[in-house]
This record gives sequence, structure tokens and C-alpha cells, in this order.
Amino acid sequence: MSKPYTRLDKNDVAVLLVDHQTGLLSLVRDIDPDKFKNNVLALADIASYFKLPTVLTTSFEDGPNGPLVPELKAQFPDAPYIARPGQINAWDNEDFVKAIKATGKKQLLIAGVVTEVCVAFPTLSALAEGFEVFVVTDASGTFNEMTRQAAWDRMSAAGAQMMSWFGVACELHRDWRNDVEGLGTLFANHIPDYRNLMNSYAQLTRAK
Amino acid sequence: MSKPYTRLDKNDVAVLLVDHQTGLLSLVRDIDPDKFKNNVLALADIASYFKLPTVLTTSFEDGPNGPLVPELKAQFPDAPYIARPGQINAWDNEDFVKAIKATGKKQLLIAGVVTEVCVAFPTLSALAEGFEVFVVTDASGTFNEMTRQAAWDRMSAAGAQMMSWFGVACELHRDWRNDVEGLGTLFANHIPDYRNLMNSYAQLTRAK
Amino acid sequence: MSKPYTRLDKNDVAVLLVDHQTGLLSLVRDIDPDKFKNNVLALADIASYFKLPTVLTTSFEDGPNGPLVPELKAQFPDAPYIARPGQINAWDNEDFVKAIKATGKKQLLIAGVVTEVCVAFPTLSALAEGFEVFVVTDASGTFNEMTRQAAWDRMSAAGAQMMSWFGVACELHRDWRNDVEGLGTLFANHIPDYRNLMNSYAQLTRAK
Amino acid sequence: MSKPYTRLDKNDVAVLLVDHQTGLLSLVRDIDPDKFKNNVLALADIASYFKLPTVLTTSFEDGPNGPLVPELKAQFPDAPYIARPGQINAWDNEDFVKAIKATGKKQLLIAGVVTEVCVAFPTLSALAEGFEVFVVTDASGTFNEMTRQAAWDRMSAAGAQMMSWFGVACELHRDWRNDVEGLGTLFANHIPDYRNLMNSYAQLTRAK
Amino acid sequence: MSKPYTRLDKNDVAVLLVDHQTGLLSLVRDIDPDKFKNNVLALADIASYFKLPTVLTTSFEDGPNGPLVPELKAQFPDAPYIARPGQINAWDNEDFVKAIKATGKKQLLIAGVVTEVCVAFPTLSALAEGFEVFVVTDASGTFNEMTRQAAWDRMSAAGAQMMSWFGVACELHRDWRNDVEGLGTLFANHIPDYRNLMNSYAQLTRAK
Amino acid sequence: MSKPYTRLDKNDVAVLLVDHQTGLLSLVRDIDPDKFKNNVLALADIASYFKLPTVLTTSFEDGPNGPLVPELKAQFPDAPYIARPGQINAWDNEDFVKAIKATGKKQLLIAGVVTEVCVAFPTLSALAEGFEVFVVTDASGTFNEMTRQAAWDRMSAAGAQMMSWFGVACELHRDWRNDVEGLGTLFANHIPDYRNLMNSYAQLTRAK
Amino acid sequence: MSKPYTRLDKNDVAVLLVDHQTGLLSLVRDIDPDKFKNNVLALADIASYFKLPTVLTTSFEDGPNGPLVPELKAQFPDAPYIARPGQINAWDNEDFVKAIKATGKKQLLIAGVVTEVCVAFPTLSALAEGFEVFVVTDASGTFNEMTRQAAWDRMSAAGAQMMSWFGVACELHRDWRNDVEGLGTLFANHIPDYRNLMNSYAQLTRAK
Amino acid sequence: MSKPYTRLDKNDVAVLLVDHQTGLLSLVRDIDPDKFKNNVLALADIASYFKLPTVLTTSFEDGPNGPLVPELKAQFPDAPYIARPGQINAWDNEDFVKAIKATGKKQLLIAGVVTEVCVAFPTLSALAEGFEVFVVTDASGTFNEMTRQAAWDRMSAAGAQMMSWFGVACELHRDWRNDVEGLGTLFANHIPDYRNLMNSYAQLTRAK
Repeated sequence: MSKPYTRLDKNDVAVLLVDHQTGLLSLVRDIDPDKFKNNVLALADIASYFKLPTVLTTSFEDGPNGPLVPELKAQFPDAPYIARPGQINAWDNEDFVKAIKATGKKQLLIAGVVTEVCVAFPTLSALAEGFEVFVVTDASGTFNEMTRQAAWDRMSAAGAQMMSWFGVACELHRDWRNDVEGLGTLFANHIPDYRNLMNSYAQLTRAK
Repeated sequence: MSKPYTRLDKNDVAVLLVDHQTGLLSLVRDIDPDKFKNNVLALADIASYFKLPTVLTTSFEDGPNGPLVPELKAQFPDAPYIARPGQINAWDNEDFVKAIKATGKKQLLIAGVVTEVCVAFPTLSALAEGFEVFVVTDASGTFNEMTRQAAWDRMSAAGAQMMSWFGVACELHRDWRNDVEGLGTLFANHIPDYRNLMNSYAQLTRAK
Repeated sequence: MSKPYTRLDKNDVAVLLVDHQTGLLSLVRDIDPDKFKNNVLALADIASYFKLPTVLTTSFEDGPNGPLVPELKAQFPDAPYIARPGQINAWDNEDFVKAIKATGKKQLLIAGVVTEVCVAFPTLSALAEGFEVFVVTDASGTFNEMTRQAAWDRMSAAGAQMMSWFGVACELHRDWRNDVEGLGTLFANHIPDYRNLMNSYAQLTRAK
Repeated sequence: MSKPYTRLDKNDVAVLLVDHQTGLLSLVRDIDPDKFKNNVLALADIASYFKLPTVLTTSFEDGPNGPLVPELKAQFPDAPYIARPGQINAWDNEDFVKAIKATGKKQLLIAGVVTEVCVAFPTLSALAEGFEVFVVTDASGTFNEMTRQAAWDRMSAAGAQMMSWFGVACELHRDWRNDVEGLGTLFANHIPDYRNLMNSYAQLTRAK
Repeated sequence: MSKPYTRLDKNDVAVLLVDHQTGLLSLVRDIDPDKFKNNVLALADIASYFKLPTVLTTSFEDGPNGPLVPELKAQFPDAPYIARPGQINAWDNEDFVKAIKATGKKQLLIAGVVTEVCVAFPTLSALAEGFEVFVVTDASGTFNEMTRQAAWDRMSAAGAQMMSWFGVACELHRDWRNDVEGLGTLFANHIPDYRNLMNSYAQLTRAK
Repeated sequence: MSKPYTRLDKNDVAVLLVDHQTGLLSLVRDIDPDKFKNNVLALADIASYFKLPTVLTTSFEDGPNGPLVPELKAQFPDAPYIARPGQINAWDNEDFVKAIKATGKKQLLIAGVVTEVCVAFPTLSALAEGFEVFVVTDASGTFNEMTRQAAWDRMSAAGAQMMSWFGVACELHRDWRNDVEGLGTLFANHIPDYRNLMNSYAQLTRAK
Repeated sequence: MSKPYTRLDKNDVAVLLVDHQTGLLSLVRDIDPDKFKNNVLALADIASYFKLPTVLTTSFEDGPNGPLVPELKAQFPDAPYIARPGQINAWDNEDFVKAIKATGKKQLLIAGVVTEVCVAFPTLSALAEGFEVFVVTDASGTFNEMTRQAAWDRMSAAGAQMMSWFGVACELHRDWRNDVEGLGTLFANHIPDYRNLMNSYAQLTRAK
Repeated sequence: MSKPYTRLDKNDVAVLLVDHQTGLLSLVRDIDPDKFKNNVLALADIASYFKLPTVLTTSFEDGPNGPLVPELKAQFPDAPYIARPGQINAWDNEDFVKAIKATGKKQLLIAGVVTEVCVAFPTLSALAEGFEVFVVTDASGTFNEMTRQAAWDRMSAAGAQMMSWFGVACELHRDWRNDVEGLGTLFANHIPDYRNLMNSYAQLTRAK
């Protein structure tokens, strides 16, 4: 009763970053802010490192929700950027879906704020259209653990795969022989324990 | 292997509020009382805002279970109100089911106290009769996290969708262009962080 | 795509209490001891109240595992009592299975110590033989939350239903008109908050 | 070695509300937002109920810190309101201290955001000048439990008394015979469990 | 710089049980209800076992606060019982203080609901009058851990000693040779792990 | 709708230990280090006790990841040991898969660091090739509970069974009559509470 | 207002291990059993390493409390061993105090089970007699965090210093030049993270 | 009984950073690594911003403890840097104390790894010599919350003041009019919520 392993393929993946806006981020309380900021930027670095087509979208940037966090704006200057005029589910916005389909990819990495809305709604819509959806859980945030668990349950039951940004990076990379230094640096920049390992190692090998 | 996205449709939804009684509420210990009160009233405001037909039911209001919380009674003066003579599963009460069927809706939002009984039993019964059931998890309470997890597992395995009240509101609204002020006010009334965003924004835009 | 609601029927249920032994109980650390003791005795009272056939089994009572807790022994003096000579999965013991089949019931309520072994193994075996299995999660204990979650995941994936003792009692009773005083007393004995409600109520109605 | 009990005296108390601003509130993560909002408003209601002179102060209302939460502004329209031009420790602002001394009270109730700065600094300054200081801990918020514990340790070692808003209200009131209805209503408005008790009680006594 | 050890002396101790009322108990959320009920009854059993003079007091038993829990009423039928007409700090009630002074004891064990009011206020008053006060922390309950910590900090700074009921029993008993069976039974009745040890032991020694 | 119980069979099981390296272990923060070390060594002892063919693999032992923990190296001197030249998913390494297939077993016990990569990837690959996979969850570690939950969700949805090392040992052993002393010693070495039970028992039986 | 630093001096320290008995250990639930076992054995290794005179004592070894854990008995075969006939506070036993005074030391390291009794009582007695007392908090265990906090509060207020076994070892050793290998091995045996550091280091330096 | 407020004075403060080494950091488990890294770098930025004389010290950089984290080395290239040859308490090293005394400051900010040793020992020594010591608690780390609480208790009882890095910065700065932009940038770099406030604000004011 085995089934095929739906595995991330760096040639077939697009990244959707949904509503990581400076105001909305104050709603995120299921992850500590230091860690959450780090996770989102790690995912952005993964998108850049693997040259994954990335689509940005926001909801009412000029109002209380606030602008997209400037770091993301700066990191993806040429990415399609859809400021939705009102649709809550980004997938209800034609331009957003067009931008995704224009990438020609069938695997989607989705992260956003808040999990049960900005992530779950496009996830469910994309699954319904036949995409393979991988939720980057730790780059997505919500009000508390209870709302998170409900959101995960709903997405998982619909067929989405729950991932962490680290798992995503590893599954995309597949083999360290493709490049050690680049990905190693990315990990060192976003995992303090890993940076410590590398610095201890560097010290000892320099000492030889 | 994609499947359709069973999505809340404000024209096809009824709300069931089961046993939010003043005595029974003292049993709820998986959510902090301040937050729980807020969640239940938020769901009530959603029902009012979207003009969703709402059905109220209680169990032994005259005994230790206590009366329905007065705020709910006041907010839905014309809603069918079924004081069950003894049935624990509200679905076993003919009047309750009749009231639901009279709405002509096939999607049900259910919340109640306690989760594994007053929510889970009608949820399982409604699913068995072909309704689409959405559990408003954070407007439902129980003894502790362990009993909650067991209840969620049972309902989820049977096909119910786990939601938060915020997710419900967003999925019902679909597009902010339908109305910004009304829903924005509802959110500000029930999400202190959101109210803060709005007040900061108002201050700055007034200042122009 | 609805499916029938597999619902506890007091005429078709047997209770299996597996290895609640005085020594093994010291291994239980996912539930506080005061609460766990209360949960187990509540389940025993449910079995007595609904006159459910009950099967007791233990593993090496004469060794470090210790004897069955005396309260259970005292409450079910006539229940089949299988001191297994070595089988870890109680279902591997013919006498145990015979005792269950002799009840003629097809729904099984299982609780025991520890969850991933004494509960999960017979649960999986019983499901494989076509029984409907309801795990009384809060009358079952294990080393920590991590082992509990793994055990629940395995049993739930195999089709067992996760319940609490309170949910079990309510689903068995169905209607308070069957008897208010007996079940009310049972709840008051095992739910301090409920006892408080009843005492407050009694005071006020006496005062009339 | 007994010492006198330094007890709140409603005739000798002033309330200081420091920097409860809409922007700064997004920094508070040691208390859930629903509960924190409730605690702050409860303290405000206490100040009003006992007619305690109240002093408001803010830091850079026109910048990112945001305005004082409008509810407080509305509740104390005539209170001294010191928009500090830059002093971080409110006690370094002469107008603030003057406003306090003008009340003629020697007991101070202090709450604010964030605890280790906006509360702790004026607390330490006031103690040094001989005031009796009572910190309303649950109407004060900070980044996390660790920074809160450090702040409490510092203030407690300096002689401040750690209180909750409920303890404050009770110590000020002293005797229910002074007024049952007013304070009872205040408690019902801010303690859902208490409101439930009152509603259950009302139902039963009405029923007589 | 050593100081004398202020040690409980069973000949010089009185027990004060303050406001353990059926309604007020619904406010206690810093301890699980099963455990809290057990702790309070354990303290009551200690008072009986050591024949400590015990004083009961309540606040508005006829209103929403509810009656004293019946178990306490039944266990101390002859104890002074002060239904306070309004004083929040029980020490402000002359009859209460008279009843305490009538015992002729100078060490007081205090427990009650809620900790920062019903326990802390009489604790501070009694310390100020020169009594030695021992707070039975786990037989006292309050809204949450934050209010508890504040209450402990205040009482500890004033010179009260923080105890658990188990520590109290052990310090009063001093030597098991005074009586093994009585206290052993008390412990077995209130510490499930201890009961298990005793039952395992009994089984093995019987088996000899 | 019953299905067969996929049960561990000691004659058909191989153990895969993936990347338990001294550097990578510093990344594990979802389990306390004392407990995690104990769990991993318990699993190793299970492999030895049941003489299960075991396959070891590591990733870049000479770099910051560090060497395999020496205890594992010492315990399995003759086990296939695959130092992967770069593949992140061990299953992508032909030697690793060959070593597994050479055992002729179709049930795999997998543990490793970190869970969502070193455990999840080979788990998903093995399931896709028709193996029965049992994840030893508590001998596998990752960054935090959130990444663990996502990893479990993904593996469970794909058909892996979530186990604890204790559950694994019990399901493999099946009957204590196969050997009491050996497995009892293993349990005593890795479960302090169990060792205590055995020592208490030994004392009493010696005393006879 | 500076005061002298009361610092552990390895020439002036005795170690008291109170009631680490196999039965009583089942009561310890404020520390995970794997970690607690490790902490106690680490303290024993410290006593051996620094050749600190050590005094063992137990309460009713032949009853349900069970024997002293055999590892301690084996490690200190020549230590004074006082099986108390009944005194709960070990300091009430003349032989125990004599054994301590015979060491001629004035600094005492105390650890035991349970914290608020077996540790706190002798701690308070020893302080009263002028000893300097250092509580090894993590080698002492009790029922839960609440009882632990109360016990710490009482001992700390009386002048005891709260330590961890690691802090004790470091303060006793003072300078690594006294011996690197011995203490390093002790740390590696009891701190998995430290062992990992050492193994990573050994690998790299061997590789030179 | 008021006492003077011992307040940080930027002209009289030196900063001591003790043993923030890449290996030792793997021992820190009472704070999440992302947050801890941020806290330490925030403290470093405070030292730079206020031009506080800073002293660095390490223990066995060439061994398993690993080198000082490179960011600190880079940020304080001219700071006294004491590689201790063996003293565990940095204050036992003459060069370290000389470097501190050479600054001429009498207030010390201390942070390090691990809290109960590298922070507590020099804190206690410095207090004994009459320095005013402020522990930067959240830039100091240790094994778990229990060892942290013991360490805080010991330092606090000796007269050290417990602070957070944010409190330190605010108490040093005193008045925003000294400089808004510099400190605002520092806060934005280390408090994601604050950065969000500033970015939201910038967007709106730019929009004018």
C-alpha cells in the first residue's frame, strides 16, 4: 500500500510569501519574535540561494496592516508583487494565480501571516487545483498554539505537507556535493548552534 | 489526487451554539477565561455580522449547569432556542435538528462546552447525515489540553474541519471590498493587537 | 462522503483495564498522579454504573510491577481476572480474548499503563479482528507527552477513537432522563468543579 | 521581630499609569493580550471606582510608540497627563513628580509598559523618596517571563510590594458593607468566572 | 549571623481555613482542581490528626460565593465558624481574631481562596501582631501563576514562611515513632504514589 | 473496515541509526540532553539485545558535524557503516540501501538527528519502496517541538508508525517468558523508575 | 554595604545525602527521572572526586520507602550511614549530627528527597547552629514545582545558598590547573553536551 | 526606611563579558538560541553605543570550550582580553581584576556562560569588594530554568541587581533627547516588534 514520495524538486518549486507585513506581525504569538524573524529571513535566503521563483503578496499595505517587511522587499526586487485590493485568500486574486502559473512550477512552498488564513486558504485552493503544497510551518505565524494546531490539522487533512525551513533547504539541496560553502553559510547565518560548530571547527583546523 | 476545497460560504452556513451555560463554563480549563469569553463573543458577533441563522441550545438551565450566558441570549433574541429536556447529544433532540434543517443550510459552524461532548457528538451526528461541519475550536472549551486533543482527533478523523473564529470570519468574508469598516470593527473589538494597530494608524493619519 | 457515526452503545460495550498495577503506576508521568488516580477510578465507576462487563488483566503481579491497585480489585470482584504469565500484548493471551468474546460485545473501551504498550497493542489487535475500539486516553498513562503523542498517532491511524472518561460516560448515557441522580453523583465525585456547582445549587434551592 | 503591615488606604493612594501606548503594547509578550487588556482596564475601573487621583504619562505619542490607548484617555479626561519630552524614567520629569506630589498621597499604585523600565524606574525612584510603592504586576507587561522575573526581583529587593489588580481592589475596599453592588459589578466585568457565579445566582434567586 | 529556626510545634499551632467556598473555588486556576481538592482535604486531615484547633471563616455564603465546601464543614463540626458580615481581610473581623487568640497558640497555619487576598491579608495582619505565620501554599489557590507569585513575594518579604501541606505534616510529626500507622494512612490517602509504595510493600510482605 | 495490524517482528527488522554525531547533537533541543542520550543508548541496547541487523551512517564526520557518538561506534563494531560523501537523504546513497537490503528485512526502525531530515527523508523513501517503517521518535531529535510536530505529521501521513523505544522493545519481545532477566536489566538501565521498583523488590525478597 | 562572599572551600566541606531511597524517588516529579538520576550521581562523583567527607542517612529502609539507591551505597562504603529510627528531620538524630561534627567542617552541601522536608529541615537546623549551608537544588527533588518554590523560598530566607551540582563542582575546584582530566571526565560523564564537545575536539586533534 | 536608588550611570560603568565561547554556548538551554544570540549581541551594541569600557575573558579557548564568538572579538578589538590560564572564577585572575580596576568604574554589568559559574562567581566577588553589580540576565545562559533560578537567588541575596539588556540600555540612556536615532536603531536591530513599529510609522509618515 506504498505510495510515491512527493519530494521537493528545486527545478519545480515556486515560493509564495503571503502578508508578512509589519503591522500583521504583531498578531503572531505562537513563535517568539526573534525566532520568527529568523525563520522568515531563512526562507527568503533559501529562495534566493536556490533561485526559486518567488511571489510576494500583501493586503492593504497602506492601512493598519502595514507594509511588507522591508527586508523581503529588498531581497526580491524583481519578484511579482501583488498588492491585493481586497481578496483575503490570495488565490482569489487572479494576478497572484497568474504569477504562480507563469513560473510553470507545480510544487509550492507557502508561508505567511496568519497561518489559518493567509497560509491555509491559498494552500487549500492550490491543492484543489492539483498543485503539490508544502507549508513552511515555522515561517508562518498565528495568534497562539491552539489556532496553529487547528490550521495544521485542516491543511494536513487536505493533503498539504508540513515542513520546516531547514527541512525544505535540505530536501531541495539533496547532496552537499552540489555546494558546501553556500548552503553552509546560509545555515550558519540562521542556526546559532550550527555557526558555533563551524567556528569551533575553524579554530581547530586553523590551529593545525 | 486533488480534492475540492470545502469552503465556508456565507449563504450556506448555520451556527450552532451548544451549552455555553454559566455553570458549565467553570469546567473549561483548556483556555484562559478572559480569552475564552472573548472568543465566544467574537463568534456571536460573526454570526450577527454575516446574518447567519443561529441555533441555541442548553441542557438543564434550571439546575447546576446554570443559564445560557446572558450576552448570547441578548444577542440572538429571535433565534431558535432549544432547552433540551435531557438529550446529551443535541442532535438527538428533534427540535434542534428541525431548527437546523429549517435554515436550509448545509454547512454548520459548531461551538460549545465541553468540546468532547457538546461539540463532538453533534459534529459526528451531522457529518453522518452529510452536513459539512466546521468546528470553531477556540470558542469551544473543555477540561484540559489532553481531553481537547482527544476530541479534536476524533472529530477530525470523522471529517470535520478544525477552525478558529478568526479563520471563520475571514473565509466567510472573502473580500474586504465587501465591507471594511464593519469587519474591521469586529476584529478591533476582539483582537487587542489589531485594535492597537488601528489606533496607531488613526493617530498618524489624523495627524496629517 | 459521509460515514456512519460509530457511537458507543451501552448494550454493546466491554471495558478492558490493563496493568493498572501499583509498581507500574510510578512510570506514569504524562498526567499528574492526583488526576490520574481520579481518572482511573472514574472509569471504574462508569463501568459499574452502566453495568458494563469488565475484564481485568495484569502482568507479573508478584514482581516489581506490583499488584493491581486494590480499589479496582475491590470494585470488580467477579470480573474475569487474567494474570498473564508473560504475554506483553494482553491480546496474545487466549484467556483474555476468550473473556472478551464471552461478553458478546463488539465495542471495547480500553485503558491501561503504559499507553504505547498495554493500551496500544491490544487496541491494534482488537481493531484487526473487527472490534470497534475506544481508547480512554485520560485513564491511560505513559512516560511523557512525547511517548503519548506517538502512541495516540499510531492508534488513531489504525482506526481507534480517542475519548476521555467524561466523553465515554456522556455517550453511553445519551439522555439524562434515564437517570439524573446516579450519573450526577458520579460526576460530582470525580469533577471537583461539578461538585461545587451542585453544592452551590443545593444551598440556594434549600434556602428557598 | 514583627513589623507593621503597610496596607493600602484608599484615602492615601494615587495611581500612576505609565506608557500604555498602542505601539508599545505590541512588545508585551509575558501576558496574553486578551488578559492584559482586561487587567489594565480593570485597574482603570478601580481608580475610577475608588476615586483615586490618577496620573497619566506617555513617551513620544506622535512616533512609533503610538498614542495612549484611547480607553484610558477617555476614562480620565481630567487627570494630569504628562507627555514626556524624552525622559525614560517618568520620575525624571518634574511635571510628573509635581502632579504626584500635588495629590498629597504617600502610597503609589504603579503599572506600565514595559515592566523593567516604565514601571521599575519610577518605582525605585519613588521608594528612594520615601513613598510606599505597590506594583500592579498584572497590569504591567514586558517582553517575556525572564525579563519580568528580573524586574520583580529588583523592585521587590528595593521594598516595593507586588500586587495583582484584584488584591489592590480588595485591600482598598476592606469591607463589602461599604458597597456590594458597585464593586461586584466591577469584578463581574473583569472576571468571567465571577460573572458566571453571579449569573447562576441571579437565575436561581429569580426563580424563587 | 545564624538565627533561630522557627519551627512548627504541634502544641502551639492553630489552623485558619479562609473562604474555601464552592463558588469562589471556580476562580482557582493556578492549581488543577483534582490536585487542589486533594491538597485542601489533606490539610484538613492534618488538622484533625494533630488535633490542631481550627478556625473556619467564610464570606457571604448565601450569595454567589457559595457555601463552605461541605467536607470541611463536616470535618470540623465544633470549630469556631465565622461567617463574616463583610470584612474582606478576615483579621478585620473581631470574632475571627478572638477565636484565634482563644486557642492560645502563637503559630498559625493559613490557607484559603484566593491567595493574594484571603490568605495574604490575614497573614500580613497576623505577622504585624507578632504571630509566626506559615502559609500552606498548595492548599491556597488563585487566578494564575502570576498572581500567585506576586502574593508569595509579598508574604515572604513580610516574614511568612512558605510551606506545602506535606512539609507541614512532617514538621509537626517530627518522629515516626510517635505513630506510624495514622500518619502513614493520611499520606496514602492523599499521595497516590505513596499509596502505591505501601500497596506494593504490603503485597510482598504478605507473600512471605 | 478492519485492517491487519502491522506489528514488529524481531525476525524481520533492521535498525537504521542516522547521523547521531557529536556536533549535530548540539542542534537537538526538543528533548532534554540527559533524556535524549538515554533514549539513543536504549535503542542501541535493543538492537544488540534482539540481535537486529543495524546500519550506521553519518554525514561529514570530519567537519563541524563531528564524529558518530563513540558509544554507538563501540557497540556496533561490525555493523555496516556508511560515511555518506554528500547525500542528505541517506536513502539516496546506494551503499546505505544495499546494506539495508542485504539484511533481507522488510521492517525498518529508524532514528536520527535531525528528525525532519535525517529521519523523515529515508522514512519517506523507504515507505515508497514498500518497507514498513517504524520511527523511534524519542531516539530522534530536532530543533524544537514545532519542527518535530511538522516532521511527525509528514511521516505519519505517509504511513510510518510512530513509536517510542520502550514500545519497540515490548513489541519485539512479545512475551516475558522468552527472557526476563535480559530485558529487565535493559529496562532497569534506561528507566530509573523501573530500576527503583526492581531495587525495592530485591530488598524485600532478600529480606525474606 | 558589601559583605564577604561565603564561598565553598574544598577543605571545609561535608556532603549530606538524605533519603535518596528507591521508594521515595517515585515521589519526585519536579525533575525528569533521567535528569534527576544523573544529577544525584554527579553530586556523588563530586564528593568522591574532591574526597569530601560524606554522610548518608535514610528513613525506614525496610518499609515502603525502600533502600538507599545501591549506587550511592556502593560509592561510599566507608561513609557514616545513619538509618534513622524515626526522626524526620535528620538533624534531630544525634548520630547524624555527631557524624557531621566529626568531620570538623563548617560548610555543608545538602541534597535529598523530598526537598521541603529531608533537605529543608536539616538545612534550617544547621543554619541555626551556625553552619554555612549550600543546597544542591538539582540533586534534590519533590512533588512539583510549587512545593519546590515554597521550599527554596523558606531555605533562602533563612540564609541557605541555592546551588546546582555544576556550580558546586566549579566553586570547589577553583582552578583547572589543579587537574584538567579528572574533572573534565566527571563533566563529560554527566553533561552530554560537554561530552560531545570533547569528542568533537578529540576527533579533530587526533586528525592532525 | 527608604534607601537610595542604585542607578546605572553611563559614566561609571564597565562591562564584563565572560566566556561566551562557541563550545560553551551549546550548554545554554534556558533560552532559545536565536533569542540568546540576539541578547548577547544587543548587550555588545549597548557597550559600543555608550562607549562603555569592556573587558573580555575566556577559559581554554584552544580546547573543547571553543573560541570567543567571533562577533564579540570583532566588535571589541581593543578591549582587554584575558585568556585565563585556569581560574574558573574570572575574579581570581589578577589581570582580569586589574583590567576592571583600570577602568576606574564602580558599576559593573556582567553577562556570561554559564550563569551560576561564569556570572555568579565574579558577581559575588565583585560585590564583596564593594562594586555595584548589575547582572544582564538575558545575555547570560545556563543549563535549564532550575539552575538559573538557583543562580539568580544566590546573586540577588548577595545584593546584585537583576536586569535585562533593554532595562540596562534605558537606564543608561535616561533621556531620549540625548539621541533618538542611535538608540532607536539599536532597538530596531534587536527587537523585531520595535522594528515593525518603526517601519509602519515610516511608511505612514512618508505617505504624507
